[in-house]
Amino acid sequence: MTRHYQALIDHLSQISNLSRTNSLLGWDMQVNMPPKGAAARGAQIETISRIHHELLVSDRTPQLIEAATAELGTLAYDSVEAGVLRVAQREYELATKFPVEFVTKWAAIEAMAHDVWAKARANNDFKSYQATLEQIMDLARQRAAYLGYQTHPYDALLDEYEQGITSAHVGEIFSGHKDQLVELIAAISQHADRVDDRVLHQAYPIDRQREFGLAVTRALGYDYDRGRQDTSVHPFAISFSRDDVRITTRFNETWLNPALFGMLHEAGHAMYEQGSSAEFDHTPLAGGTSLGVHESQSRLWENIVGRSRGFWSWALPKLQALFPSQVGGVDLDTFYKAINKVQPSFIRVEADEATYNLHIMLRFELEMGLLDGSIRVADLPQEWNARFESYLGIVPPTDTVGVLQDVHWSAGLIGYFPTYALGNLLAVQYYNQAITAHPSIPEEITHGKFDTLLTWLNREIHQHGRKYTSEELTHRITGQGMDSAPYIRYLQHKYSEIYGL
Amino acid sequence: MTRHYQALIDHLSQISNLSRTNSLLGWDMQVNMPPKGAAARGAQIETISRIHHELLVSDRTPQLIEAATAELGTLAYDSVEAGVLRVAQREYELATKFPVEFVTKWAAIEAMAHDVWAKARANNDFKSYQATLEQIMDLARQRAAYLGYQTHPYDALLDEYEQGITSAHVGEIFSGHKDQLVELIAAISQHADRVDDRVLHQAYPIDRQREFGLAVTRALGYDYDRGRQDTSVHPFAISFSRDDVRITTRFNETWLNPALFGMLHEAGHAMYEQGSSAEFDHTPLAGGTSLGVHESQSRLWENIVGRSRGFWSWALPKLQALFPSQVGGVDLDTFYKAINKVQPSFIRVEADEATYNLHIMLRFELEMGLLDGSIRVADLPQEWNARFESYLGIVPPTDTVGVLQDVHWSAGLIGYFPTYALGNLLAVQYYNQAITAHPSIPEEITHGKFDTLLTWLNREIHQHGRKYTSEELTHRITGQGMDSAPYIRYLQHKYSEIYGL
Repeated sequence: MTRHYQALIDHLSQISNLSRTNSLLGWDMQVNMPPKGAAARGAQIETISRIHHELLVSDRTPQLIEAATAELGTLAYDSVEAGVLRVAQREYELATKFPVEFVTKWAAIEAMAHDVWAKARANNDFKSYQATLEQIMDLARQRAAYLGYQTHPYDALLDEYEQGITSAHVGEIFSGHKDQLVELIAAISQHADRVDDRVLHQAYPIDRQREFGLAVTRALGYDYDRGRQDTSVHPFAISFSRDDVRITTRFNETWLNPALFGMLHEAGHAMYEQGSSAEFDHTPLAGGTSLGVHESQSRLWENIVGRSRGFWSWALPKLQALFPSQVGGVDLDTFYKAINKVQPSFIRVEADEATYNLHIMLRFELEMGLLDGSIRVADLPQEWNARFESYLGIVPPTDTVGVLQDVHWSAGLIGYFPTYALGNLLAVQYYNQAITAHPSIPEEITHGKFDTLLTWLNREIHQHGRKYTSEELTHRITGQGMDSAPYIRYLQHKYSEIYGL
Repeated sequence: MTRHYQALIDHLSQISNLSRTNSLLGWDMQVNMPPKGAAARGAQIETISRIHHELLVSDRTPQLIEAATAELGTLAYDSVEAGVLRVAQREYELATKFPVEFVTKWAAIEAMAHDVWAKARANNDFKSYQATLEQIMDLARQRAAYLGYQTHPYDALLDEYEQGITSAHVGEIFSGHKDQLVELIAAISQHADRVDDRVLHQAYPIDRQREFGLAVTRALGYDYDRGRQDTSVHPFAISFSRDDVRITTRFNETWLNPALFGMLHEAGHAMYEQGSSAEFDHTPLAGGTSLGVHESQSRLWENIVGRSRGFWSWALPKLQALFPSQVGGVDLDTFYKAINKVQPSFIRVEADEATYNLHIMLRFELEMGLLDGSIRVADLPQEWNARFESYLGIVPPTDTVGVLQDVHWSAGLIGYFPTYALGNLLAVQYYNQAITAHPSIPEEITHGKFDTLLTWLNREIHQHGRKYTSEELTHRITGQGMDSAPYIRYLQHKYSEIYGL
């Protein structure tokens, strides 16, 4: 009865299996691979990527989509079948936008740029990276042209990560809360001495950090029968199926935060993938719908839950049991304030909740300017530093901790940064809906009970995988679009209390 | 100038990359995969295997081989090009021997049989496995027919693992040393009380077992910049390229042997793969030439080196430093005898050097009889037990520790067992050549110096990868074929001294 649709599903599952296999090759490279295994691994990834691409762009894909569409007739928008056809069509279209020569050029610059960037960062030598970054920006403009856009090349790139959002919309959202963030941070700076986070900077043996992180993420609902945790230089979450979603952690022996909040963060990503509907596995509907929504899940668990007073009224005694000499004598209030210390700092990935979005806004402004030509690559360091001083009140002493800090541009990821900030906003919007539906959630969290919240997230977000776009999903849940007001209210409320503003 | 040959190499490297990728999917399944990840992983392996098979049997393979052969003209037999053409042709022919229906049937029985066997073994219930094993043997006969053979169906199956060796030849080699083994073991049994191995059965913390195993295998020459060690239920070595060759270990907290000698064994396999010529990577010449030669390398390091008195005169002080309470007071002679204790036992994988080949011989005889119909599956248990008593003087109390112990038949691996015994013989033949070339090797080993031996193995065996067959290689090295006489002399000399015969 649905012969063509079944053939399409079979075809798409081959494509999915190739893509998941590539993910494993990548995961293993970062987690396990011995140092000298890189060259052969690169060749393996190249082979699997090429076969994946060939299968996706083969004539069979549009033929099967067309045949299945005709066969299925009119479908409800939110049916699985309609979702599969929509997302498969989009994947096919994105993959066929670029001529082969462009794909080759893009791959070549990607392969080369990482090392150039890494050396420039290590040597605080922006000049040595400048020509490469100029090439990358040229290619990014070409990429945008191939993808097509109406107003600004940025829109084309952003759409790959956050379907349907325009740079104008992001610009509005950002300018709608930038001043309030700057004000809040300035106010906090007046009372910086009210929070002391020295308790977090002590010797914390890694084995016990891991033990605590595993126990807490398991309590949240990350299913380790369908996941695992490993160590890597750059922490990440990755999915090989909804039943095999893994996280990695970077441990710091003398600072509790990176591994602890990193594990909560990555577990948030992982629970999203684990919650994707079982019937989506092997189809393009499996996984998370956009980077912004993905980030909303990681930030919700890391910050809204994991940096709340209620959470630590449950978790602190457990931490004290594992680290009696480090935190045995600390009270809840001191610990809660310590993990929420606000301090303008140079490095985005170490930024606190209040300053984080400002790090993103300046990158967004620079990317926009680089793409439309209003900012030259050569001027990036001073453009970076000027914004940094204006937004955060400090100036990076070197480019290493300034414009050179992120890997993204060297990997060709332009238009990616905003999704981090959008995730912060969405996290608060979604969480507010969850507690409207279940006012008991904050109280439950103080008892280490997280299943009401997780079940709500599963039902409203996770199970839908990629069936709805970020905007569709947000409208379904909140009745409106992305909005920075709840986020600002959340920060103002939280930090007024902590800093006694 | 060699355009067609280059195109062939490119084609073969795609095939190799797919096969290596499949190996990673399998390694991860055994080492890391969370319990519930199996179904999706199975689908991924199926996709990659199918694409690998399709590429190998595509018309492009023989076309490229033919074009390259014409282009290259007359080649020296031992040139890389001639080797690539030979092995590629053989791989292609093997892969095209079976009709699709047969491949499907074979895969179906493989997928089903493992569980049937595992349950039968757990319940000591051979009858519940009998029908499945009959099906497997039928398929194995069909497999042999598709492969083709002159004398006995066993030859066809054996040839897949040990090219060019016939069952008649194996039968000769086995009958040429079976009686001497039986006699030796009977003689040893008279003086069983002269060796006490209780020192090996104590509490040995796993962390320190691993530390010792890593230090020792590193000293042997296993390059951990191009390898790593993990834990798994069934220990194995696996290669993703010559620069990424990994081993796994099973630890026993109260018995030193499994992990210690297991690591030496797997490191032997790994050093073979690491020594394969760099120019063979991505070609079918990479890796080890046959299962027998591979086993010769693992057994050489595990037994000839790792169970020698000289080795432990270097290694025992290191073991004592790590395990002072367990072995601090033991002298070299006692320890050396303990690790060489001979004791007829039921389980092949735990057998000592002297009894091991008898375990193989009885399996070989049974497989031969099952294939030619002279033994019925229904009679296997009594056929097994009768041989066991005659060769080893003991009768398995249950089929679980008898005919049901091995996974091989349930995985369709018929004709595989002899390679283990051939490996034991080849190990002694090769080692004798090495010390003829470098008489200093035994003395060097007492100082923990292994590079003369490893360099010799690299030059004579490892670097050649699959360029020569097992027989060709053995003739090049020893000037003659496989021979059990050196093995018997080695055992007689070693155990006469240990047991004072």
